[in-house]
Amino acid sequence: MRNEAAVLYGPHDVRLEERPVPVPGPREVLVEVRSVGVCGSDVHYYEHGRIGSFVVEQPLVLGHESMGVVVGLGSEVTKHHVGERVALEPGVPCGTCRECRAGRYNLCPYVKFFATPPVDGAFARYVTIHEDFAYALPDEISDDAGALVEPVSVGLWACRKARLRGGEHVLVTGAGPIGLLAMQAAFALGAARVTVTDVVDERLQFARKVGATATVNVRSTPLVEAGVEADVLIECSGSPTAVADGLRCLRPAGTAVLVGMGPGETVEIPVAYLQQHEIWLTGTFRYANTYPDAIELIRAGKIRPEEIITGHYPLAEAESAMQATRRDPSQVKVMVLPQLEA
Amino acid sequence: MRNEAAVLYGPHDVRLEERPVPVPGPREVLVEVRSVGVCGSDVHYYEHGRIGSFVVEQPLVLGHESMGVVVGLGSEVTKHHVGERVALEPGVPCGTCRECRAGRYNLCPYVKFFATPPVDGAFARYVTIHEDFAYALPDEISDDAGALVEPVSVGLWACRKARLRGGEHVLVTGAGPIGLLAMQAAFALGAARVTVTDVVDERLQFARKVGATATVNVRSTPLVEAGVEADVLIECSGSPTAVADGLRCLRPAGTAVLVGMGPGETVEIPVAYLQQHEIWLTGTFRYANTYPDAIELIRAGKIRPEEIITGHYPLAEAESAMQATRRDPSQVKVMVLPQLEA
Amino acid sequence: MRNEAAVLYGPHDVRLEERPVPVPGPREVLVEVRSVGVCGSDVHYYEHGRIGSFVVEQPLVLGHESMGVVVGLGSEVTKHHVGERVALEPGVPCGTCRECRAGRYNLCPYVKFFATPPVDGAFARYVTIHEDFAYALPDEISDDAGALVEPVSVGLWACRKARLRGGEHVLVTGAGPIGLLAMQAAFALGAARVTVTDVVDERLQFARKVGATATVNVRSTPLVEAGVEADVLIECSGSPTAVADGLRCLRPAGTAVLVGMGPGETVEIPVAYLQQHEIWLTGTFRYANTYPDAIELIRAGKIRPEEIITGHYPLAEAESAMQATRRDPSQVKVMVLPQLEA
Amino acid sequence: MRNEAAVLYGPHDVRLEERPVPVPGPREVLVEVRSVGVCGSDVHYYEHGRIGSFVVEQPLVLGHESMGVVVGLGSEVTKHHVGERVALEPGVPCGTCRECRAGRYNLCPYVKFFATPPVDGAFARYVTIHEDFAYALPDEISDDAGALVEPVSVGLWACRKARLRGGEHVLVTGAGPIGLLAMQAAFALGAARVTVTDVVDERLQFARKVGATATVNVRSTPLVEAGVEADVLIECSGSPTAVADGLRCLRPAGTAVLVGMGPGETVEIPVAYLQQHEIWLTGTFRYANTYPDAIELIRAGKIRPEEIITGHYPLAEAESAMQATRRDPSQVKVMVLPQLEA
Repeated sequence: MRNEAAVLYGPHDVRLEERPVPVPGPREVLVEVRSVGVCGSDVHYYEHGRIGSFVVEQPLVLGHESMGVVVGLGSEVTKHHVGERVALEPGVPCGTCRECRAGRYNLCPYVKFFATPPVDGAFARYVTIHEDFAYALPDEISDDAGALVEPVSVGLWACRKARLRGGEHVLVTGAGPIGLLAMQAAFALGAARVTVTDVVDERLQFARKVGATATVNVRSTPLVEAGVEADVLIECSGSPTAVADGLRCLRPAGTAVLVGMGPGETVEIPVAYLQQHEIWLTGTFRYANTYPDAIELIRAGKIRPEEIITGHYPLAEAESAMQATRRDPSQVKVMVLPQLEA
Repeated sequence: MRNEAAVLYGPHDVRLEERPVPVPGPREVLVEVRSVGVCGSDVHYYEHGRIGSFVVEQPLVLGHESMGVVVGLGSEVTKHHVGERVALEPGVPCGTCRECRAGRYNLCPYVKFFATPPVDGAFARYVTIHEDFAYALPDEISDDAGALVEPVSVGLWACRKARLRGGEHVLVTGAGPIGLLAMQAAFALGAARVTVTDVVDERLQFARKVGATATVNVRSTPLVEAGVEADVLIECSGSPTAVADGLRCLRPAGTAVLVGMGPGETVEIPVAYLQQHEIWLTGTFRYANTYPDAIELIRAGKIRPEEIITGHYPLAEAESAMQATRRDPSQVKVMVLPQLEA
Repeated sequence: MRNEAAVLYGPHDVRLEERPVPVPGPREVLVEVRSVGVCGSDVHYYEHGRIGSFVVEQPLVLGHESMGVVVGLGSEVTKHHVGERVALEPGVPCGTCRECRAGRYNLCPYVKFFATPPVDGAFARYVTIHEDFAYALPDEISDDAGALVEPVSVGLWACRKARLRGGEHVLVTGAGPIGLLAMQAAFALGAARVTVTDVVDERLQFARKVGATATVNVRSTPLVEAGVEADVLIECSGSPTAVADGLRCLRPAGTAVLVGMGPGETVEIPVAYLQQHEIWLTGTFRYANTYPDAIELIRAGKIRPEEIITGHYPLAEAESAMQATRRDPSQVKVMVLPQLEA
Repeated sequence: MRNEAAVLYGPHDVRLEERPVPVPGPREVLVEVRSVGVCGSDVHYYEHGRIGSFVVEQPLVLGHESMGVVVGLGSEVTKHHVGERVALEPGVPCGTCRECRAGRYNLCPYVKFFATPPVDGAFARYVTIHEDFAYALPDEISDDAGALVEPVSVGLWACRKARLRGGEHVLVTGAGPIGLLAMQAAFALGAARVTVTDVVDERLQFARKVGATATVNVRSTPLVEAGVEADVLIECSGSPTAVADGLRCLRPAGTAVLVGMGPGETVEIPVAYLQQHEIWLTGTFRYANTYPDAIELIRAGKIRPEEIITGHYPLAEAESAMQATRRDPSQVKVMVLPQLEA
């Protein structure tokens, strides 16, 4: 075994280098990484060397949407076997703090999360992970779909926060990968209609191709003039306008979930509308308890993450992969395959 | 206009007779009935003249799964127009009692419910109903599917009580019309697998045809030996064995919903298992707030009630319709079409 | 019987005039009004002749926090008897629309609400109300406390929206009548600590007298510097600063409920904080299903609305009552007693 | 430091013996035990050597309702200091399994729980525990009350499962320590009335002394004849009759929580009543996420566990302590004080 990783040294500086194969701890498994999705946060670190207060101060391996094959077992591992294909939940929480005990482990202040400084991620040939955060993948799920259990989890978590009931109309603002997977998750959980908005027609066409009931280009048609009446808003663009206008599309007792991170700390919210209609507003930070269900929903064909994949790259071209989505609006989700020869 | 109705005078005594066309009250609409499903409760009244404490003491029109076309409007009606196709929610509650105020209008002690003595039902050419309990049907929904919004509601309500989350495994015991529609509703709301049980192979074949992931004939394989691990039990058979064995198939914190009515007042429940796994058990009585969502789910193709229809009868043969499902196990759901010439 | 009412003709123009004794409809009771609380909204109508889009266009009787004695029964009334003391829930919804059916009757667009144009309120000797919105008062509850079931309901509803769990720390911003009753409701429902903020020391002293664990004068100590860590925010001041700063005091997964109406349509909300901590934000519009529980909590001594009463006025001095709280910060809640001789 | 423990060797065979002072692991604290409550399960192990499938196969230290003072810190402990008084949550779960991740750590199959074979409990002078399961006690809480955070947690958990809303009427069947603390917890969370049942008058008198609104001796007055209409049933007796009759006292949509363990695996449940009224039934197994809130509620005086204490014993007399409640119905809760000289 020989390990290699794509390491970020600073903005626009990614180097392929050899690293020791990691040794699994007692309850960890060693995983040969097969497929890794490139996330907007990877691209943001690549371009800016930071996301908010998370700063890349030492070389960092990016990549947190990953799956692979178990090739080694720690001494106490009982739940996996060598050869098993597994999706990797990238954040391992402490397990005992107030948030963990309450089942909100995504809010654990002690979490170790792939590709979040100073924890290395999965743009590598080998990684280790706690056995309870590796989830067996059934044969029906491809490597790429297995890696994308991660962004599917983001969408599923948003739908859960939205307390989506069957038959509802969901408004998704922002047709990027998260918006599209949130849309598919919403359908999987019973949405009868999903309207998707964006400012780029090409993305809205893509949204319709992968399932949107209707789309609105909010560059030409302001959302408040589009006549949308939704039960749930899943905001995936980070745009303050989308937040405020999206809220105004909600029917009484509707719920708005903010998934996209915006440019500023605050947004001007129509609180009078929110009060008069007893609207609920919340936001999501990663996800919790989604992996087993996301895997089942993908296996059952109810969420089809492969539909949003637009390109594949070997590990040696991880940097190109990260550049791809920035340059070309027709690129939606690109994958890095660490075992692929360049 | 000339009204006719199939009237139950006593067990096995149904007579087709002419009745005055009903006059809608100020907030009622007059509806020309187009399609009515035959429910097990209709058959039970037909055979026994009673269901529990509800006794047919005067001639009663049966039928409560119905739709039709609006042909007249009360003086204060504002929400409908003549010519509109509507599904009829058969129970009109008082609207102001404790249960109604809490949104549990299905538990309203003052409800007037079609085909429940002494309130006449929909095996008739014309009926009236409060405008807020007539729901416009989109063109995509057929007459028969519109009538079956009612049993779909029973299944949807059971899934809501079960607090079904996406990705779960649902166990449905009993492959009759309610079991099958509960199964489809479970899939629509995000179930990844539904296992259906019954004691008749023919019904289980039918269940697989309309979507079941797996089936178990509990006559040959006791449920506790079938290795089912479910998150949710939806009990639609009324069998005490199904209740007790179904509960034992639930994973920790699972939920069991009793829909089927059993032969007795009590059932021997494995409470120790329920306590150790913190299982939830509840039951359903009709449904509340399901019609708009059920219509949307049918429109979107997520629930397909027509798949369970096995026969159609004119009003003059309503009695034959009620006899059909009792005689022939291949009959699942039969419809009465009051405007069809015999 | 001779009826009199205090009628608002326009801003600062209230006239005592004789009116016919109202005749109860079939399901209404005739009530001799005994006690009515003066609400901030009454004062606002008195001063401005409108609240937002609700405009007083014809003479209007104010007053909606009321109780009295049943002195007449409509022909179909079965739930009350003459001589019974009753609290009056001032909003009677339609009972059958989407919101009513869902149990959210406070959002019914067809509601008839006392003292909201054009519906007359309870600054009168006699009023009628639907029998299901008159609630029998036990002997342990005084007339004044019975009238104040209404503002207690506002506080109780806020606590319910906050999904208050026992043992929590609640932050109430704004020490007016609603803030103080929300505080008592929070304690009644299990809050272990309630911190109250205001900009007037006198009101904070009063808050401590009626139960606050701690108080902060946010004029001298900005809330974000006060070191408050709360599970729940109940915002009762309408101040945009209180909304934004209060949110920042919430622990992960906390809930903020906006009760107070602010000066504008929008407020700048710290959405990044809300997302990172998965905070819930909602607002309240009146209340639903609170009366029976509020009465029980007052009867049990867990909420003591009389503690906030600072004055009583006869009907002839209703105008003085409305002026009182505006002029004198030591006035918290004043009552109008329609049967009291001036 | 010298450690001593009361060790169960078999039924009716408890021996005081010297044991090594335990050495805390990296994230554990060493605690000098000050107060330990005797639980019915301790007594059951003492008398029978087993509880269901849990069998005492090697010498076992009983006691799991405990508090003490931190006297030593593991190498990685950051949340405690020497000298701190702490309540000990006796079950330390794995932190990463399906149940733990979901916040249901009480259902963790890998939990290590004090005084459950083969894990030793707290009838000892010193114990160790993971720092996240030791909770700082404020000065206002006595040693005994700190130990009884454990049974208070059982009661609080039952109330949470019951989804108790303010103003409700709670029926508690069984006036033992758990019933009485569940009663106090119910009041703390907003119950307006709690009716307590038992078969021993002396216990019912005690229940009234510590807060019961009303009591019923079900030996003389069958519960179904007592006219109780409750919103919530908290069953703490284990009696099959109490389960079945208690359920029949519930109003529509009420909730029943089974806390007491009964003599058999099954109970005859009135399922028809449950279905017609859409009652919820569940059971509890230990508790989760209750300690911080229970401590706050005790600190605030809303739950007063010391009121049920009827005796104290030194460690050397732990066996007498366990015998006490069996012999004398006036004994409700007895405490063992390990630092007390015999």
